[in-house]
Amino acid sequence: MKKIGIADTMFSRFDMGNLAISTIKDSGESIKTERYTVPGVKDLPVACKILFEDHGCDIVMALGMPGPKQIDKQCAHEATIGLMNVQLEKKKHIIEVFVHIDEAENERKLTEIVKDRTIKHARNAIALLKGKTELTRFAGQGIRQGGENAGPLVHIY
Amino acid sequence: MKKIGIADTMFSRFDMGNLAISTIKDSGESIKTERYTVPGVKDLPVACKILFEDHGCDIVMALGMPGPKQIDKQCAHEATIGLMNVQLEKKKHIIEVFVHIDEAENERKLTEIVKDRTIKHARNAIALLKGKTELTRFAGQGIRQGGENAGPLVHIY
Amino acid sequence: MKKIGIADTMFSRFDMGNLAISTIKDSGESIKTERYTVPGVKDLPVACKILFEDHGCDIVMALGMPGPKQIDKQCAHEATIGLMNVQLEKKKHIIEVFVHIDEAENERKLTEIVKDRTIKHARNAIALLKGKTELTRFAGQGIRQGGENAGPLVHIY
Amino acid sequence: MKKIGIADTMFSRFDMGNLAISTIKDSGESIKTERYTVPGVKDLPVACKILFEDHGCDIVMALGMPGPKQIDKQCAHEATIGLMNVQLEKKKHIIEVFVHIDEAENERKLTEIVKDRTIKHARNAIALLKGKTELTRFAGQGIRQGGENAGPLVHIY
Amino acid sequence: MKKIGIADTMFSRFDMGNLAISTIKDSGESIKTERYTVPGVKDLPVACKILFEDHGCDIVMALGMPGPKQIDKQCAHEATIGLMNVQLEKKKHIIEVFVHIDEAENERKLTEIVKDRTIKHARNAIALLKGKTELTRFAGQGIRQGGENAGPLVHIY
Repeated sequence: MKKIGIADTMFSRFDMGNLAISTIKDSGESIKTERYTVPGVKDLPVACKILFEDHGCDIVMALGMPGPKQIDKQCAHEATIGLMNVQLEKKKHIIEVFVHIDEAENERKLTEIVKDRTIKHARNAIALLKGKTELTRFAGQGIRQGGENAGPLVHIY
Repeated sequence: MKKIGIADTMFSRFDMGNLAISTIKDSGESIKTERYTVPGVKDLPVACKILFEDHGCDIVMALGMPGPKQIDKQCAHEATIGLMNVQLEKKKHIIEVFVHIDEAENERKLTEIVKDRTIKHARNAIALLKGKTELTRFAGQGIRQGGENAGPLVHIY
Repeated sequence: MKKIGIADTMFSRFDMGNLAISTIKDSGESIKTERYTVPGVKDLPVACKILFEDHGCDIVMALGMPGPKQIDKQCAHEATIGLMNVQLEKKKHIIEVFVHIDEAENERKLTEIVKDRTIKHARNAIALLKGKTELTRFAGQGIRQGGENAGPLVHIY
Repeated sequence: MKKIGIADTMFSRFDMGNLAISTIKDSGESIKTERYTVPGVKDLPVACKILFEDHGCDIVMALGMPGPKQIDKQCAHEATIGLMNVQLEKKKHIIEVFVHIDEAENERKLTEIVKDRTIKHARNAIALLKGKTELTRFAGQGIRQGGENAGPLVHIY
Repeated sequence: MKKIGIADTMFSRFDMGNLAISTIKDSGESIKTERYTVPGVKDLPVACKILFEDHGCDIVMALGMPGPKQIDKQCAHEATIGLMNVQLEKKKHIIEVFVHIDEAENERKLTEIVKDRTIKHARNAIALLKGKTELTRFAGQGIRQGGENAGPLVHIY
């Protein structure tokens, strides 16, 4: 059975890990999950590596909510560089689900973004487990996570 | 027969992967293609590595349309760092075809840029398969993809 | 017995290393510590690697106080990239405890931040030694080090 | 006989590769050259690696003219990170000769910068082939490529 | 006998390499030095690697004076990333002594900064050769190179 790793943070203001796990369970797919919780996003890369190497995960979701300040953007960047390195070393995808706290003007909207992005990316993780052209039917369709799809440019011409 | 990998995204608002494949087919060259579609540009590097290692690609085109915000620039930067690492590990070129959504003032112009850049870089990929001096006749000629050539400075003096 | 490495700097304006060590001792846990002091934050990564490889540390705290200027942010960024690489190579956590000198409007507040962040992250280091779900009960709770918790978004809806 | 690799781009508006090669020839030194032309600066690192590994180069000049926009600076940065990684892997110098298109107010001045920087760095490449203290007599002398030397501070006091 | 590598640049406007060497000699310690001069700061990382691997250095000082422009900050950043990678690969310290030309309002002050930072960091390099707690007595003391110490926050409360 395939296994999806769930790496999440205490810093996040929403239990994204729990939502990702329940989305995977509700998918009806026969997939196991394995969780690892760290303080903040910069601690996620080594957690992901451990989920791959010691817990046999086939793909990992890295979930976090970076803060609103410039230094927080820098932290998110550093976390992503680490996640990239782990992916390339293991030759396996890490689906990064980061919601920046300044993406929304209020907490209600922020919650909507977090939920939408987490659920949709959990479905992307499941799709990527099935093969490299599973998402090809959506290629170039302007698909978004965390809000409405932008749609394809080609429809206009 | 040589093989060109085509890594593209759902996030893109134009089916760049399809255009790249048809450009390669229309070239008359005897080249196979292999496609891999991911959610966004940060997922491209591991897809490229898989296209090289598991699907025998000789070169890969990494196609995407990063969004207009500062955070999108950061994502594109992170994707490029990953693509760079894959290239150096495999000692093979990845032709990055990124069109930033804020490059054009309207969607018609944006579509023109996407098409022009994708087609021209598909031809560059074919040329690089032929050898390291295949493009030397264009060296220093101010060649552009996605718009008109800037031309060489030397003509003015 | 588990061992926590303590890498700290002369540049810092507070003896964060000493506070981290006393926090670990006061925890009542049976944990040893090993210290390494360097000039500034960019010297921390190699110190952390030495603490892991030559001194058998299971986790390392990297403590520093980057200056207030833009170039100092760049130095902190470079230090973090190095710390990330060490973590991934050793597959062990480095808890980065950086306090930027411009985080507070005065020295009293700055001291409070340094103390709070150092103590709380020492506790996080201890928790991570116990396993990957030790902190899961705090996942998504908006936990902060260096100030009050932001709390979870979910409580509002 | 020593060999200098010449990696250049189609994007550049000046044939820097050709000028580098003729400068090396005109030096009277017994040095061979090997050329590799790519579309843009981000394609240079893998070309340099191939020049070292498959063509026996002892040092490589990486020549390019990044564009004037912020995204072009980012591309140049990404290229440099790749060039750095190749240098460290091969333990051989890559002399990066980048001229940013916004360095000069007009095309005449830009051409002067390109020529001056390319010629002087070709001479630096030759010097570095001779040993690690070949350039020591110029240490701290404020030497510039692409314009006049700044000169040493020490002369003033 | 221990050996300190001295990697310096022609770009620098002060002969930092010579000052570092004389500081080490004047220290009375039994330490050898080995010099490597390159054009600019981005050429330092591979020089440092060569000093470690081919010349048996135990620690290296990387000395340079990055220019005042934004692109110069980017170059310094790229150099530092390379220096970081060399340190981690060799598990040995590189003491980076960079003085940014815009740090001082005039050349006299700039010269003072260069001298002070070079001398103090030469002493730090010597101290680090003696062991990992040699500098612990200065931990958290707000020690600066290139100007007056900031001093510890703790003295105020």
